[in-house]
Amino acid sequence: MAAGSTIGTIFKVTTWGESHGKAIGVVVDGCPAGLPLDESDIQKLLDRRKPGQSRFTTQRKEGDEVEILSGVFEGKTTGTPISMIVRNTDQRSRDYSNIASCFRPGHADYTFEEKYGFRDYRGGGRSSARETIGRVAAGAIAEKFLKQLNISVAAYAKSIGPVEVSPERMDLAEIQNNRFCLPDAEAAKAAEDYLDQKIAECDSVGGVVECVISGLPVGLGEPVFEKLDANLAKAILSIGAVKGFEIGDGFAATKACGSENNDEFRMDGDKIVKETNHAGGVLGGISDGSDVVFRAAFKPTPSIAKSQETVTKDGANIDLVIHGRHDPVVVPRAVVVVESMAAITAMDMLLVSMTSRLDLIQIFFQVENADDGDN
Amino acid sequence: MAAGSTIGTIFKVTTWGESHGKAIGVVVDGCPAGLPLDESDIQKLLDRRKPGQSRFTTQRKEGDEVEILSGVFEGKTTGTPISMIVRNTDQRSRDYSNIASCFRPGHADYTFEEKYGFRDYRGGGRSSARETIGRVAAGAIAEKFLKQLNISVAAYAKSIGPVEVSPERMDLAEIQNNRFCLPDAEAAKAAEDYLDQKIAECDSVGGVVECVISGLPVGLGEPVFEKLDANLAKAILSIGAVKGFEIGDGFAATKACGSENNDEFRMDGDKIVKETNHAGGVLGGISDGSDVVFRAAFKPTPSIAKSQETVTKDGANIDLVIHGRHDPVVVPRAVVVVESMAAITAMDMLLVSMTSRLDLIQIFFQVENADDGDN
Amino acid sequence: MAAGSTIGTIFKVTTWGESHGKAIGVVVDGCPAGLPLDESDIQKLLDRRKPGQSRFTTQRKEGDEVEILSGVFEGKTTGTPISMIVRNTDQRSRDYSNIASCFRPGHADYTFEEKYGFRDYRGGGRSSARETIGRVAAGAIAEKFLKQLNISVAAYAKSIGPVEVSPERMDLAEIQNNRFCLPDAEAAKAAEDYLDQKIAECDSVGGVVECVISGLPVGLGEPVFEKLDANLAKAILSIGAVKGFEIGDGFAATKACGSENNDEFRMDGDKIVKETNHAGGVLGGISDGSDVVFRAAFKPTPSIAKSQETVTKDGANIDLVIHGRHDPVVVPRAVVVVESMAAITAMDMLLVSMTSRLDLIQIFFQVENADDGDN
Amino acid sequence: MAAGSTIGTIFKVTTWGESHGKAIGVVVDGCPAGLPLDESDIQKLLDRRKPGQSRFTTQRKEGDEVEILSGVFEGKTTGTPISMIVRNTDQRSRDYSNIASCFRPGHADYTFEEKYGFRDYRGGGRSSARETIGRVAAGAIAEKFLKQLNISVAAYAKSIGPVEVSPERMDLAEIQNNRFCLPDAEAAKAAEDYLDQKIAECDSVGGVVECVISGLPVGLGEPVFEKLDANLAKAILSIGAVKGFEIGDGFAATKACGSENNDEFRMDGDKIVKETNHAGGVLGGISDGSDVVFRAAFKPTPSIAKSQETVTKDGANIDLVIHGRHDPVVVPRAVVVVESMAAITAMDMLLVSMTSRLDLIQIFFQVENADDGDN
Repeated sequence: MAAGSTIGTIFKVTTWGESHGKAIGVVVDGCPAGLPLDESDIQKLLDRRKPGQSRFTTQRKEGDEVEILSGVFEGKTTGTPISMIVRNTDQRSRDYSNIASCFRPGHADYTFEEKYGFRDYRGGGRSSARETIGRVAAGAIAEKFLKQLNISVAAYAKSIGPVEVSPERMDLAEIQNNRFCLPDAEAAKAAEDYLDQKIAECDSVGGVVECVISGLPVGLGEPVFEKLDANLAKAILSIGAVKGFEIGDGFAATKACGSENNDEFRMDGDKIVKETNHAGGVLGGISDGSDVVFRAAFKPTPSIAKSQETVTKDGANIDLVIHGRHDPVVVPRAVVVVESMAAITAMDMLLVSMTSRLDLIQIFFQVENADDGDN
Repeated sequence: MAAGSTIGTIFKVTTWGESHGKAIGVVVDGCPAGLPLDESDIQKLLDRRKPGQSRFTTQRKEGDEVEILSGVFEGKTTGTPISMIVRNTDQRSRDYSNIASCFRPGHADYTFEEKYGFRDYRGGGRSSARETIGRVAAGAIAEKFLKQLNISVAAYAKSIGPVEVSPERMDLAEIQNNRFCLPDAEAAKAAEDYLDQKIAECDSVGGVVECVISGLPVGLGEPVFEKLDANLAKAILSIGAVKGFEIGDGFAATKACGSENNDEFRMDGDKIVKETNHAGGVLGGISDGSDVVFRAAFKPTPSIAKSQETVTKDGANIDLVIHGRHDPVVVPRAVVVVESMAAITAMDMLLVSMTSRLDLIQIFFQVENADDGDN
Repeated sequence: MAAGSTIGTIFKVTTWGESHGKAIGVVVDGCPAGLPLDESDIQKLLDRRKPGQSRFTTQRKEGDEVEILSGVFEGKTTGTPISMIVRNTDQRSRDYSNIASCFRPGHADYTFEEKYGFRDYRGGGRSSARETIGRVAAGAIAEKFLKQLNISVAAYAKSIGPVEVSPERMDLAEIQNNRFCLPDAEAAKAAEDYLDQKIAECDSVGGVVECVISGLPVGLGEPVFEKLDANLAKAILSIGAVKGFEIGDGFAATKACGSENNDEFRMDGDKIVKETNHAGGVLGGISDGSDVVFRAAFKPTPSIAKSQETVTKDGANIDLVIHGRHDPVVVPRAVVVVESMAAITAMDMLLVSMTSRLDLIQIFFQVENADDGDN
Repeated sequence: MAAGSTIGTIFKVTTWGESHGKAIGVVVDGCPAGLPLDESDIQKLLDRRKPGQSRFTTQRKEGDEVEILSGVFEGKTTGTPISMIVRNTDQRSRDYSNIASCFRPGHADYTFEEKYGFRDYRGGGRSSARETIGRVAAGAIAEKFLKQLNISVAAYAKSIGPVEVSPERMDLAEIQNNRFCLPDAEAAKAAEDYLDQKIAECDSVGGVVECVISGLPVGLGEPVFEKLDANLAKAILSIGAVKGFEIGDGFAATKACGSENNDEFRMDGDKIVKETNHAGGVLGGISDGSDVVFRAAFKPTPSIAKSQETVTKDGANIDLVIHGRHDPVVVPRAVVVVESMAAITAMDMLLVSMTSRLDLIQIFFQVENADDGDN
């Protein structure tokens, strides 16, 4: 839990960079060798989180073009660290000069100042959403790796403020068609209306992102502290603005009875299946072969144009109006970040899970006539 | 994320033991030297999770008496590993023999069998709730340590099935007065009625546990992956039966506007305070000086006496009726487990946070005339 | 590097216990499931480090009988933590009362006192050689695991004080025949004479232990910091009394030329082999298929009966004569400790090495028609 | 021990980059905030390892100019990751094309090929000495930090091939005056003659580097596996070409008696001092206040112009003559790498050591009226 910019045991991701520093980047270590990879694999995911795509996302213009600096040779990963960098090109530090000496409500200004004695106040510094560029670049590698094992990860918006996706209208194909990544055209229209109203009020909005991991083998997750869902929870809560996590039925399960919430097993041919998936794909913290389904709660964007009370570093009470470019809702751009953290976590735990059984290890190392252990 | 029975960086907790093995225990490493400690400190917390206390908890009778085997000398911790053990004395393996060859719905039987090739089927083995004995023993040390720094941790039930604590009636003194650890006498009565009904139906119930950490200094939590709330989420989701985590307003914040959800700062004398605490005591993943408040969602106990469909190891569909001693709701005994995991996490992150500033490090090491770094 | 009693990433070993506490033990986590194991497997190795076997080892009498408390079911490891305990039965605390208030030269008394503010002075507390019981118990598991993959680990004394094994007379079968684990009967006789003389002088002796790991596949070791030899060095230097480590030709290589020190490759049928093994079985920190050969330098036992100058806790200069039971040379009992640490390290790095190649991972997970990554 | 490019617990260093990739770099996380730092601090150390400085180092010309990309604001570290990059400007890939299909003796070609299925053969790829640029950049930060605590680290050559520094002539001021970093002018002259002869023979040479850490407080090092010397050993063995490590008297101690090797304590005013330092500054793995003194054994450069036998990837025996630019001895440029790894290790363990005592933690957090722990 120290030096917090690294996550993972085998597949290890280290992000770095501030919003208005020279660049943002990530080092991905422990990626198995032989994975086909080039910058376009990364760019595709980065483009999904890029600002300036609609009037509901910050108007900051950045190419956010990624460069791979190491770890790939002749089009394939080499097994050594993959360093990726995105230069910050549209920094406009002047936009933020008025907040250097006070603490914005809902932001990390105050806690960074106290923890470190001072802070890089430009655009939120390390706690800016631009930090997630590194996560998404790493997530793109993880998603590509998982695809080689027929595992897919998909996230989308489940609600925007009070506007929720209707189970009846749910259609994943709709995600591409609206600016909120909502799998429900009607909800997207309602969300647009709601958001327009909140923008007019100089206010902001939160929402819920849902993510599904499909194709995971049974067996990911290490009892007792390194459960798959525990690591997903950590990965998701590590995203700025996330205030909650639930897997399967989550909080709703607290109101159900055991007979409703238990997923019964049945044979499907010679395959064991769960007839329902209230558990969200984990039993005892270990993947059970069903889809892993979880949700992340995002708070409303803290940067709002409405006047707010706050204090200065020197201890004066002031009223603050935040100018500048801010997403009125983070959910649309956060969807790919959630997906990335899910992929990173699943990939790491999949690699770890390879070591659980002696018999499979013996096959892996092609041991034929092992000592029977009798001496 | 490997070898999942260890958690923590500086304050490191390793639990071991199966429900029906010889014993259950924990090794606590990295506890600072000089903390007064004896077995009664541990036993107090263990007694709060002990079975057999009411008709709403399992009737299994265990003394659950802890023995400290190392790391304490002349009544104080020495800084070396503290090993603690609780012997399993009431094992009754026969109770479970009928489930050796099939997979109980909602349990980890299936995933353990697949992951490891076989499993200790006696009482759930490693995935039994008895595993939490190790967590609580470690949590008792963490709570005692935190107390030396004027930090306290308190958990209680927030809801039992559909029965919720009323904000108006909320009274922490009530926790001791009812079997559910509910801080609301009226809710406790309603919960009792609800549970009696579910027991009669051979069914079980879930609930929500809330936890408050008070007195934390500003500055715990390491950006970006090792946020305080991210580590709390992992610690809490690592508890069996937990399906969700939220901090501060949690999922409710997704429906609020920024102007409602932001906590404004004001001066209180010469102290900076937040006027509200929607954030739950963390900003940017770092403790902000307010109470840290989070909730855990517990699913209903999966072991129910009602007949359920399931499959055997050999691939036959069967109907299963689970006999034996099971809590119809895990919340009352889980409260102290949540509290323990919170204390363990807070203690570890507090120790890590000591290294964030050069000026404080120089004071710690009593450096007076340090080189000015000009060479 | 925190909370120093745990080592390993996948195969994780946590030792605990003081020389004169209630017990000594170890928790071994991350051992793959399905390894046949019972207490006799552990006891065999423990008996090799047991005191009281000759006049050259401490006369303390301990059964040192190990009990497995968890992680084994129906004669096989379950994949969950294996907790092992050895009760301290012959503690005689009175022997050590005279050293409670002063610092023995060459011991950790002074540094423990300063680091922790006080110390368990009985028999060296945590820095006693009895701590190695936990290492050897874990090593026994690692050795048994490695044997299932046709990998063996063997350590022996290479020198006792100035008495060295002669390369011409070297005969591993001799190890069992003398009290020093010397693979050279003549050297053993000389060592006995030398040691008798030193005992008469109330003095003590050091020596070198050599260890060979045979049968390792190519590919263990992670560039750049987690090299196989780097982890072996750490594991070996973590043993009390070790002051040096070398692999292959070690320090002698510093005086050789490149043309002498390089191991040339040749084909042996269709197998690539090194014609020599100056490297000691690692190239670039990765096992190369040859025997891994390394040496550990042990200092002379610091506890000697000769009078020595030292100081008390209160700052007085005194002369100290150490009574009690002490090995005049630690090498014979350290041989099995070196072997254990080598096995623990090799096992952990072998498990980690399984994740280096995508093609092998696809085979492991039986992926046949993976997406070609073109989307 | 996974994903081997990261080292450290609190002060965490992650290097990346291949010899002939686009760039080489490092991310340094966990550096306390407030340390004055700019690129010149890093460049100074990098210049000490730069090639092309004499006829005894490779003639490759690289500016090796470092750029700091994050983690520094207004001239001071912010507590967030410090990303540093050095572009590779003189790559000449053609020089290495002849070795793409065969395995150079003494190099990691064979083991990388086997471990990863293929390798970046250009200039050794990840196992090139250029990887140490990242270590030295991180080491520069660690050295600057330690200086703020009055701790210094200094390394120098102790021997070049058979030419050793004479204890009588030892003079640290001489290090700057010769190309070998030898603290002995006469030895430097002899080394030059010896090396000229070996170059003429198309051969190469090894040597020993010694390093001294001065000013360390008592108490660094965590028993039992995370001893200070154990972590130094790992850090040093992780440097390519190192084959041995010893602390204090090291291997020589194996031939001494206890009465010679023990360092007696005496009072020096009110300070406890050791009268000798055979231990090399550690007792029980914990720093004892004396200088920490250790040595690293470097093998001769494996790239030699002399013809050598080897095999191709396709299994053919061939004779190989290696052309290109290679240091005939790595020691002179390795000195600063050893120093860097020592500084990195010392800094990390110093930060970890802050958490060992409750009383000091209470002072750190300015706790005055803590609960006495009686409830």
